Amino acid sequence: MEVKTESPGDPNDRNGNVHKNTDLTLPHDFINNFASNNTTRKKIKKILIKRIPILSWLPEYNCDCAVGDLVAGITVGLTVIPQALAYSSVAGLPPQYGLYTSFLGCFVYIFLGSCKDVAMGPTAILALLVHQVTEGKGPEYAILLCLLSGIVQLLMGVLGLGFLIDFISGPVSSGFTSAAALIIVSSQIKDLLGIRASGANFLDIWEGVVKDIGNTKVWDCVLGIACLVVLLLLRIISTVGTPETGVPKWRTALRLIGISRNAILVIVCGAIGYYFTTLGETPFKVIGYVPEGFPAIQPPRFTYTYNNTHENFLDMVTNLRSGIIIVPLLGLLEDIAVCKAFANGRPVDATQELLAIGLCNVANSFVQGFPGSGALARSAVNNSSGVKTTLGGLYTGVIVITALFFFTPYFQYIPKATLAAIIIAAAIFMVEIRVIQPMWRAKKSDLALALITFVTCLVTRLEYGISTGVVLNIIFILYQAARPKITIETMKSTQGADYLLVTPDRCLIFPSADYVRNLVIKQSMRQKIPVVIDCSHIYGADYTAATVIESLTKDFKTRQQPLFFYNLKSSVSSVFVGLNLDYFLVYYNEDELDDMLKKWTEICDKI
Amino acid sequence: MEVKTESPGDPNDRNGNVHKNTDLTLPHDFINNFASNNTTRKKIKKILIKRIPILSWLPEYNCDCAVGDLVAGITVGLTVIPQALAYSSVAGLPPQYGLYTSFLGCFVYIFLGSCKDVAMGPTAILALLVHQVTEGKGPEYAILLCLLSGIVQLLMGVLGLGFLIDFISGPVSSGFTSAAALIIVSSQIKDLLGIRASGANFLDIWEGVVKDIGNTKVWDCVLGIACLVVLLLLRIISTVGTPETGVPKWRTALRLIGISRNAILVIVCGAIGYYFTTLGETPFKVIGYVPEGFPAIQPPRFTYTYNNTHENFLDMVTNLRSGIIIVPLLGLLEDIAVCKAFANGRPVDATQELLAIGLCNVANSFVQGFPGSGALARSAVNNSSGVKTTLGGLYTGVIVITALFFFTPYFQYIPKATLAAIIIAAAIFMVEIRVIQPMWRAKKSDLALALITFVTCLVTRLEYGISTGVVLNIIFILYQAARPKITIETMKSTQGADYLLVTPDRCLIFPSADYVRNLVIKQSMRQKIPVVIDCSHIYGADYTAATVIESLTKDFKTRQQPLFFYNLKSSVSSVFVGLNLDYFLVYYNEDELDDMLKKWTEICDKI
Repeated sequence: MEVKTESPGDPNDRNGNVHKNTDLTLPHDFINNFASNNTTRKKIKKILIKRIPILSWLPEYNCDCAVGDLVAGITVGLTVIPQALAYSSVAGLPPQYGLYTSFLGCFVYIFLGSCKDVAMGPTAILALLVHQVTEGKGPEYAILLCLLSGIVQLLMGVLGLGFLIDFISGPVSSGFTSAAALIIVSSQIKDLLGIRASGANFLDIWEGVVKDIGNTKVWDCVLGIACLVVLLLLRIISTVGTPETGVPKWRTALRLIGISRNAILVIVCGAIGYYFTTLGETPFKVIGYVPEGFPAIQPPRFTYTYNNTHENFLDMVTNLRSGIIIVPLLGLLEDIAVCKAFANGRPVDATQELLAIGLCNVANSFVQGFPGSGALARSAVNNSSGVKTTLGGLYTGVIVITALFFFTPYFQYIPKATLAAIIIAAAIFMVEIRVIQPMWRAKKSDLALALITFVTCLVTRLEYGISTGVVLNIIFILYQAARPKITIETMKSTQGADYLLVTPDRCLIFPSADYVRNLVIKQSMRQKIPVVIDCSHIYGADYTAATVIESLTKDFKTRQQPLFFYNLKSSVSSVFVGLNLDYFLVYYNEDELDDMLKKWTEICDKI
Repeated sequence: MEVKTESPGDPNDRNGNVHKNTDLTLPHDFINNFASNNTTRKKIKKILIKRIPILSWLPEYNCDCAVGDLVAGITVGLTVIPQALAYSSVAGLPPQYGLYTSFLGCFVYIFLGSCKDVAMGPTAILALLVHQVTEGKGPEYAILLCLLSGIVQLLMGVLGLGFLIDFISGPVSSGFTSAAALIIVSSQIKDLLGIRASGANFLDIWEGVVKDIGNTKVWDCVLGIACLVVLLLLRIISTVGTPETGVPKWRTALRLIGISRNAILVIVCGAIGYYFTTLGETPFKVIGYVPEGFPAIQPPRFTYTYNNTHENFLDMVTNLRSGIIIVPLLGLLEDIAVCKAFANGRPVDATQELLAIGLCNVANSFVQGFPGSGALARSAVNNSSGVKTTLGGLYTGVIVITALFFFTPYFQYIPKATLAAIIIAAAIFMVEIRVIQPMWRAKKSDLALALITFVTCLVTRLEYGISTGVVLNIIFILYQAARPKITIETMKSTQGADYLLVTPDRCLIFPSADYVRNLVIKQSMRQKIPVVIDCSHIYGADYTAATVIESLTKDFKTRQQPLFFYNLKSSVSSVFVGLNLDYFLVYYNEDELDDMLKKWTEICDKI
């Protein structure tokens, strides 16, 4: 409520709640009243609308929007429940924690979210990261990580650090996502086969699977594979028709069945599980007891006791290591990817999204959620179900809360193999095999980078893998800065004088200055003709470059070899001139060169 | 002796010693014989001459060279002895260790050094770094650091990592050197005042000085200040005439006195000290017993015992921390600075210098030396005394050895205040106040960077200070890569059609791709006219940029707004084309634009 300090005269404004209600029901009236005839107030109005996006769409909310949001919200709600149960297992947590992550964030996002399609909640990749970062130490760690991730995201938003994800390039992101997907698929193999295996890293998981493969349960396996086949078929059906194209009703119905495939499968398999339970014992593993009702509303715990070891806040933060940075960054990356996918050519506001998902995560940590973000798969469902505003999240959240209060007793009969099949059917399509061909054609070094990131993510940890990719990418930028491409040609001036044209392709700054100097010296010693440095592409320079240019001009003067600078930008020239260079000769028109050459000795003598 | 394996038929070649002698006395004959009629052998010959520079100059060595080297070598020898004694105290070591650092490296450098002026040995900055890195733990640590520094330098040379020092920019280097100089001066205040104070950091040192200032000894103080005055006067005298300019003999003599000022002062003050000792007690502190003779020739110790704590090799390496990287890097930086100062416009071979000083340090660690490099002050003496080849180092080394064998008994009478004055008189001129003005005029942000580095070096440690500077500089490069300057102008085509010209100033790569996209979208939505992206300055692109261009072309097609690319380099085009872009329209001639605009709908429909 930044506005409070601006209008101290109004007693209502001192009351946060009253104020808030006004905001929500009459935002435009309120703002108009508040920001009258004053550019500062106009600015504040603009900032308010930018930072609380609900203010911009709520006044124009209509019946059409309400229907779209209701349908989409419910569809997403039916999708998120099975996913939440499943992702909990990916995160190494009991099933209810996924549900706890799935409602409050949706409510917060209604107010702050800038992209109507984003479905806040647990995501497969963040769940896997939570498992790896917390090393399976249980909910306390996951909830603390959720709070810290939210705080880091809020801080990044306030400090305008959203641009940091620009440093995760396409290839690194593809390599990381593919590896994460493969690990997620691998982590579910055990439930598909009905065996025991633990671990959150690729190699650990497969070691466990191979060790226990002898104990494969036939019925888990059969059910799991059947579920997988059904899901993949329904996935194909889900693409048969979109509501806009005026297709027959049966096709729309088929499509809805396709979209709700996870919910349908969970209900059917849950019913089968319930049936077998009434008979005595199920032939396959079920997820078991899920606590009923709302989670305890309390701040995350800042201490952790396990096997007689007591850890305080600092110990916990130390144990989370780089996860405190990696989890919020990748949360943002996923969310921005969703925003971009549905932006329809509009720019994406990373700062606003940071504030939104940051606050969602902070809120979730008070209802025992683990870190979440905008989930790509559910957002796609949201979009194709015709969502109009972020208000769709309201219905999603209400459905999750309803499920928590009334349906948890039934969740215990859901077979583990069914959830495993749901995760596998979703994650398998996240392995980005499709990018290999264009990447190969566009730039082979980018493909190599993607593969390095992919392999490092698999054999070590996801955080190390993505860090490796980013660092390699940064080294590449630094290398380019240090070793610009320089074209060297022997040219003839208008009047036929030979000269050496040296054209660097970018800024002259410290890591490249000496390199350019050495190259110019080498070439100019080989061919003792006048040298022209073409500065057309040099848009920036620094003090180090200026000192190098200084020594270069002096050397050429001593050697009695002419050195000229062509087409020097004034911004660069001002840096060089700061050193009071002698013998610094610039020209801007090709015809001037012959003149300069003739007068060179004169000019130098004069200076 | 890489050549041995190439000529297994010759029994002499299997004997390293015989072979070595042949190398040194008849290198060209030997190489000619060896590398006959064969391009591979010619290449080997070229590499040999490049990597063992003595092979290139020894055949042409003549009487003139011999005289120059003799005079310069002896002058440097007389300079290095007092400096070696003084720098030992800067390094927090007993005085003899400086002498141990001053001879073997000179011999090694004769063979491998690429710059005739470099005077290998202890330097003030490296001595201070040794003190900070070893935390005054004594010779064992310093000697191990010497070995490790040498190995790191050799590795850097072999791997071609010499370019790393390009990332230490002029401002960072100035800030670091100035701070180091100020710490060195501060560290000598105690000896100048005859008080006790310890520590290697600026604040620690001054805390110690202030605490003990009440115990200032009058005679130490008087002697120290007198020495300082004499040194500064002689420094002025040293510049009165150079041997080349044919000045009167008395001026040359004065100059020689000026150059040898340290040695003269040490001899005179040593004599005074000796005189007072014969009378009973000296009124000032003297450096005391210096062990006589050659140091023990042995590998560095890999264990360290102190106050009942026993440290193994790994503990020691851990304690040396980043010093293992910073010391060799800064050693290289100093050495290259010397090479550049006397290069006379020739390029400097950083790889060769790495190999040379790396081997010097490894060798020195076997005669109990601490890390050294090419010292700027002594190299200047070397140069102005008329050194012709690196063979001057032979005489320097012989003089140091002679001093070790015959003069150490006399060193004990040298007053500490005299050595302090020598260090202060040298270090005070390393504070680079002169760069402030040009840096201010050239680029204010560079001056800020220099100041930040300077202050961080002073209040923390030198290694943190320089790291801070380098990291800030790298962030600056990355920021530039992420946020290119983009010029946006509304232009008129030849036939008068309005269009928006967007000109990015550099490569389109991952950290900037999204930024450019957002900017183009924003601008094109504001003015719904055709958009042209001028790619004249775009010399490189990657897969991430290609995907962004892909989404941009699609967005513009959807919006029915023309988007063209002007003057796209073929190297960049090939990256974009890898993605099979639709609607990707490029032109190279300004006249084509109107044609393209006319046909735009057609072209798009066709595609």
